[in-house]
Amino acid sequence: MIDKTAPRVAVNELYRFMHEVLTRVGVPEEDATVCADVLITSDLRGIESHGIQRLKMYYDRIRNGQQQAVTQFEIVREGPTTAVVDGNHGMGMVIGKRSMQMAIDKARVYGMGSVAVRNSTHFGIDGYYARMALEAGMIGMSFTNARPSIAPTFSVQPKLGTNPIAFGCPTDEECPFLYDAATSITQRGKFEVYERTNKPCVPGWVTDQQGNPMTDAHEVLVGLTKDTAALLPLGGAGEDLGGYKGYGLATIVEILSASLQTGQFLNNLLGFDPQGGKRPFMLGHFFMTINIESFVALNEFKATTGGILRELRAARKAPGATRIYTAGEKEFENEKRIRGEGVPIVPTLQAEMKTIISELGLTGYNFPF
Amino acid sequence: MIDKTAPRVAVNELYRFMHEVLTRVGVPEEDATVCADVLITSDLRGIESHGIQRLKMYYDRIRNGQQQAVTQFEIVREGPTTAVVDGNHGMGMVIGKRSMQMAIDKARVYGMGSVAVRNSTHFGIDGYYARMALEAGMIGMSFTNARPSIAPTFSVQPKLGTNPIAFGCPTDEECPFLYDAATSITQRGKFEVYERTNKPCVPGWVTDQQGNPMTDAHEVLVGLTKDTAALLPLGGAGEDLGGYKGYGLATIVEILSASLQTGQFLNNLLGFDPQGGKRPFMLGHFFMTINIESFVALNEFKATTGGILRELRAARKAPGATRIYTAGEKEFENEKRIRGEGVPIVPTLQAEMKTIISELGLTGYNFPF
Repeated sequence: MIDKTAPRVAVNELYRFMHEVLTRVGVPEEDATVCADVLITSDLRGIESHGIQRLKMYYDRIRNGQQQAVTQFEIVREGPTTAVVDGNHGMGMVIGKRSMQMAIDKARVYGMGSVAVRNSTHFGIDGYYARMALEAGMIGMSFTNARPSIAPTFSVQPKLGTNPIAFGCPTDEECPFLYDAATSITQRGKFEVYERTNKPCVPGWVTDQQGNPMTDAHEVLVGLTKDTAALLPLGGAGEDLGGYKGYGLATIVEILSASLQTGQFLNNLLGFDPQGGKRPFMLGHFFMTINIESFVALNEFKATTGGILRELRAARKAPGATRIYTAGEKEFENEKRIRGEGVPIVPTLQAEMKTIISELGLTGYNFPF
Repeated sequence: MIDKTAPRVAVNELYRFMHEVLTRVGVPEEDATVCADVLITSDLRGIESHGIQRLKMYYDRIRNGQQQAVTQFEIVREGPTTAVVDGNHGMGMVIGKRSMQMAIDKARVYGMGSVAVRNSTHFGIDGYYARMALEAGMIGMSFTNARPSIAPTFSVQPKLGTNPIAFGCPTDEECPFLYDAATSITQRGKFEVYERTNKPCVPGWVTDQQGNPMTDAHEVLVGLTKDTAALLPLGGAGEDLGGYKGYGLATIVEILSASLQTGQFLNNLLGFDPQGGKRPFMLGHFFMTINIESFVALNEFKATTGGILRELRAARKAPGATRIYTAGEKEFENEKRIRGEGVPIVPTLQAEMKTIISELGLTGYNFPF
């Protein structure tokens, strides 16, 4: 996926750039630190679609009023293990981090915690929040709905968001177990990467209105906004290979994200009002924590989990396969590598960054483009 | 899937038979009521693989000592929202129902509940326990590990169980939302049904040791026990269509089922000791509840969820498609139908039932075979 010819920007420099851009459009200093950390974490983990490549999206949405640079984090209701939070269309990362921290604090006292969030905005990589919990010695889960893109089984209309599931927990190894994946076969951000790099998509990821596969990333992205292309759920079209399971999982994420806070869902998450004007996305999230030490000693949990992962990696390989991974390993290794090499910046992204630099009149960046 | 030519047995009569068989092999009256209810619920929902077709499995395992007819339900540790339970190799359904009830009771007080179970046995359909929670006005989730059958991505060795995820919640409609699905494309019980009915399997469900698809259900079942066939995770072989996601979800279920109770996992769940002798399966389960009313009014939750499901069902259909379902609808409709028509009993199942009748010397059943 990574473009080996693209010039690299050092991680610290890219972080500094994202932080300055966010503060210059009105995000308070401390909140910009949170947002830039979520974004750079995505780039470090090799999830190119959700880091610097999304900066201009946030920048545009703040400037056109679809989200607020200053986050008004409002606790609507609270119980011993639960809370409902209203994000008031602020910065999704700020809302997400504070909400997951609430769930962690609750689980520390009661054994479990969960926070349902309404009126939020795109919060970056789902796994960031699950990782917060595992770093606190807990199991963490994070869910969010998103703009319509997945077609239900037997439909060709984008309805459900890519609705990711993130699950993290500590192990007795340096690399934690961290699962973070859309419930579609692949996700919107990946098409943005394929579009930027002019790569054809794998047939089977997207359906057109006749039920045929689409492989041009640009056409897919246009089709998703025009309601003429739809991502297929994990398991693919129809029922033969379990597509109804991916569809069902996406529905679970939609319910967790919307129903516990009486929120908007599906077609109401388009970011447009019925007259076609831009409006906030009104996304919902759900964060959940389980305090491991309420069940067993943390080191026992870590040893069992590490044992599971090592046995999986040692499974007999398929002919031609060289390595069996467990969730989070590739991203963990990316992080070490990219910290040294820097983040690749493809030409279309260079252009976006130049636009921002020019519009904000930024100086002091020595980017290699 | 249902064999239209097979003779039918009335639901009440089949329940009475299963209940008597279980009590005759030593399951206490009240526990047999629970077990038979879980089994007949499976038959009613049209999940043929997990009802009467599994009776002989339980019967054999009790008689050969792999599980105990009398369940010693032991609470090892308990906190406000959490508990660890030891099932002491008793009846999985009895252990499962009592554990989920504990999680429901905890969520009623604290907003959430979860129970990790060790040393359990096959507990029937996962969805039974999630349904208990939704009938109590809660979100219910249920997870279990199982004998090795799924190959990790890039492996051909059965390692993970079919490791199902069940999720249920109430809606404003008569039919609740109830998702219950293996994290493999399809599950072991389905091959048992295909074997009994001599149907070829869909290529892509199972891999042989060369990475090629297997379609003979009998060969698949033999291969799974001989370590020469493996189910593919949801998303299929390799990474192109997201197989690593199904594999990751199966791993999450293994972690939830084993690590919170320092239990056995993967190859240690084979039901055989290293010398090849039969031993208990030592399965783990994890049950989780979220009390909806800790977040929003129950009727608000139901209305939002019902709204999501109705919008999904009304999505634009793929060419040739006649209906879009949401999770649990097909099973809900099966239940109404099968309650009237009775449960189909295919010839191989008839033979198993006759064996049990003969071995236990049962009388008073007028089965049409």
